[in-house]
Amino acid sequence: MSKTAITPTRAENFSEWYQNLVAAADLAENSPVRGCMTIKPYGWAIWELMRDEMDKRIKAAGVQNVQFPLLIPVEYFNREAEHVEGFAKECAVVTHYRLKAIDGTLQPDPDAKLAEPYIIRPTSETIIGEAMSRWVQSYRDLPMKLNQWVNVMRWEMRPRLFLRTSEFYWQEGHDVFADHAGAAADARKMHKVYGDYAREVLAIPSVMGEKTAEERFAGADHTYTMEHIMQDGKALQAGTSHDLGQHFSKSFDIKYLGDDGQLHHAWTTSWGVSTRMMGGVIMTHGDDDGLILPPAIAPYQIVIIPIVRDENAKKLNKYAEKIGKKLRAKGLRVLVDTSDMRSADKIWKWIKRGAPLRIEVGDREMESEVATVTRRDRGKSSQKTIALADLYKNASDMLKQIQSDMLSAVETRNKAMITDIADLAELSKHLSAGKIGFFRLKYEETKSPEFDGLMEEYKISRRCLDDADPSFVFVAKSY
Amino acid sequence: MSKTAITPTRAENFSEWYQNLVAAADLAENSPVRGCMTIKPYGWAIWELMRDEMDKRIKAAGVQNVQFPLLIPVEYFNREAEHVEGFAKECAVVTHYRLKAIDGTLQPDPDAKLAEPYIIRPTSETIIGEAMSRWVQSYRDLPMKLNQWVNVMRWEMRPRLFLRTSEFYWQEGHDVFADHAGAAADARKMHKVYGDYAREVLAIPSVMGEKTAEERFAGADHTYTMEHIMQDGKALQAGTSHDLGQHFSKSFDIKYLGDDGQLHHAWTTSWGVSTRMMGGVIMTHGDDDGLILPPAIAPYQIVIIPIVRDENAKKLNKYAEKIGKKLRAKGLRVLVDTSDMRSADKIWKWIKRGAPLRIEVGDREMESEVATVTRRDRGKSSQKTIALADLYKNASDMLKQIQSDMLSAVETRNKAMITDIADLAELSKHLSAGKIGFFRLKYEETKSPEFDGLMEEYKISRRCLDDADPSFVFVAKSY
Repeated sequence: MSKTAITPTRAENFSEWYQNLVAAADLAENSPVRGCMTIKPYGWAIWELMRDEMDKRIKAAGVQNVQFPLLIPVEYFNREAEHVEGFAKECAVVTHYRLKAIDGTLQPDPDAKLAEPYIIRPTSETIIGEAMSRWVQSYRDLPMKLNQWVNVMRWEMRPRLFLRTSEFYWQEGHDVFADHAGAAADARKMHKVYGDYAREVLAIPSVMGEKTAEERFAGADHTYTMEHIMQDGKALQAGTSHDLGQHFSKSFDIKYLGDDGQLHHAWTTSWGVSTRMMGGVIMTHGDDDGLILPPAIAPYQIVIIPIVRDENAKKLNKYAEKIGKKLRAKGLRVLVDTSDMRSADKIWKWIKRGAPLRIEVGDREMESEVATVTRRDRGKSSQKTIALADLYKNASDMLKQIQSDMLSAVETRNKAMITDIADLAELSKHLSAGKIGFFRLKYEETKSPEFDGLMEEYKISRRCLDDADPSFVFVAKSY
Repeated sequence: MSKTAITPTRAENFSEWYQNLVAAADLAENSPVRGCMTIKPYGWAIWELMRDEMDKRIKAAGVQNVQFPLLIPVEYFNREAEHVEGFAKECAVVTHYRLKAIDGTLQPDPDAKLAEPYIIRPTSETIIGEAMSRWVQSYRDLPMKLNQWVNVMRWEMRPRLFLRTSEFYWQEGHDVFADHAGAAADARKMHKVYGDYAREVLAIPSVMGEKTAEERFAGADHTYTMEHIMQDGKALQAGTSHDLGQHFSKSFDIKYLGDDGQLHHAWTTSWGVSTRMMGGVIMTHGDDDGLILPPAIAPYQIVIIPIVRDENAKKLNKYAEKIGKKLRAKGLRVLVDTSDMRSADKIWKWIKRGAPLRIEVGDREMESEVATVTRRDRGKSSQKTIALADLYKNASDMLKQIQSDMLSAVETRNKAMITDIADLAELSKHLSAGKIGFFRLKYEETKSPEFDGLMEEYKISRRCLDDADPSFVFVAKSY
């Protein structure tokens, strides 16, 4: 068996493989602040590309960005009982506004205790609701579509980098409409924006559908979710969109003067995706040698590695830089790695970091004006030597091909990961046999104490109804 | 006297004018969270343009973006005594990680008290220092240049939108070098990046120089500042760059193995600009009718307003859209305002919001294929009617002209705002006569109890030494 860059392998221990990949690809690390992560330069560069592309699509949907405060008065959470029940309790609470040196060490100053504590936002529905009650006056102000890219915090006892951290980064969209039809269509529309984005940018085909009543967001009438199927068969909830009905407009008094001259409560939605998607990319595309990035979100779509010996280093680095310059002129993101690492180490570095296309050039390549090209997603078997002229002409298409092949590969795998079953007996049989993946069955079947038992025993849950036929539900383990 | 869109005028009450402009241009508002602001869509759109252009320049300087946690263990502040003395005490302190309903209202859960409290970062030197002590191993890792765009918090008792708020948004760069020369040059270099940016993007010429020993950043060996002169003659410190020497590398044990085989403490810098710059743009360029934006940071560089009557609305809106489409194809940011406001209200709206170029089209314009164009910075006197063909050809140059004229206008005004003086007697005479602006005098002159008295009496301070001759210092009132 050949050695892999990441140990253990996925087959040996998926969860440790994940953790070690995050370290090997230099994406992020646990911080000294319990449950919070530090996102390192390479990880953050990927996230910036993911974020900027999502931001473009959100703006194209007619949404405006905005920025609300980090802190939320506790009082606001008292207004929306269901919301609080949902998830607002595990919060970071700010109780003081000053430190004081007491006995030589800094401590919260007893004289600077807040009359009412603040919470670090776990989400901003409430504070945005308060603002909207003032910003929305007439039907002419509607629809109002706002979004913000912010850090949020929910205290986590069992954190995992990107997947579940106390602080994470996300966008939260909050829209207001004059009628239910507007809000209902919007929740669906943003759900589709997410699904299209995952497919076109992350090369991840999603299981798309509505959450069942049991699983929907606290305070929502409808929650639509994008579920990604990881390589270990577990679901990753990667983005949700909520039709909030009039829950928040009534709690926060968001009213508008209609063209009928009457005051009406508005209808709202909210929708969000987060750095969690980074975990989805890793567990969807990664292999036992590390990360594999779709070209659309790769900080370096092409990495050029000059295979130098002492005597040719200068000339060869120059040759590599020349190729890099030509490729950059095509609008591609290219790194020429002329650092003073050993060539073999450089190659492994960029394999682990998942650069989509690797170009090696040595003496032989330089003499014949060619380059040796390897696709990260296909590995050694894809290696070929091509003329520079062809490289310049085709590099952009090669990257497009990688992007589309990566999507196809996951589509094929996902099909094998979804099992249609008739009833709970069949579900139980599969689960006890250790079968992984999603199970699709009649939603009605899951409304029974027997299903509750299976949920408990196998840690499965209803992921969502099937958009194609909402009388069916997908069931799986999840992150 | 003609009516102005903003009352009071700058001459009547500069500080109220500022506040009312921020509201009239719909940039931001005070939030229900004490001292924190909500940045509204138009304000945030400006900030995004400011941020993205700065980000491009930071990356061009070889810096990588990164993301560190919001919270900082209090213990870290105990390590850097000077730093704490400087400003770390007025912080938001997190003491609990859960809420609990007690007597029906949510309160910090006594069972979820943190063993050691966290601070919401007022700046991240300490937590980044801790990481660098692990990330920096050998001289090969240096220089290491990191930056993050984040929210920070310093409790403010007298908040003013953009200028001084408890929570604000900024970038903080943190670089590590093997030797003092590297750090010293870097602090100077980033200072220049800021100055160039202010000039080229914000159309603000800065007073550039080193802070005096009395004014420098806590823990820094040298602090370089970019000071903007506001229209009321006060200084706005708009960006600083610090040579931190070995203060942080010693407190946080940032060491590297040199090529001499020995361990050495590294040398660090930090540098930052914030949403405060928005306040600088407002108070530098704004007039009694509202905001005036340099085209480089205007969300809409051109606003087209169809002057409709009921009978021609459809046709005229279409004509305006056609012009908008052609201008957008030139890469310009253009809004065609077809909302159902009255035309006169639209015109005032975009005057107040400072759109650099306004285009009005009515029946007459449509018939002759022309447009009426008005520059925001020059007002009515600049209004002229030009052929559409010329508009398409020249729009981009017209915006460049506005950008450069705005800079020239401030340069001229700044010259008149700086007074060279010989001694404290002269300073005292000017101040008691109510003269506004910057005063330039020998730094030595300010090292006296008499100067301390003037500082106290007139609320002036040393802004910075003069880069052209550091034996001189600039003195002014400040924000």
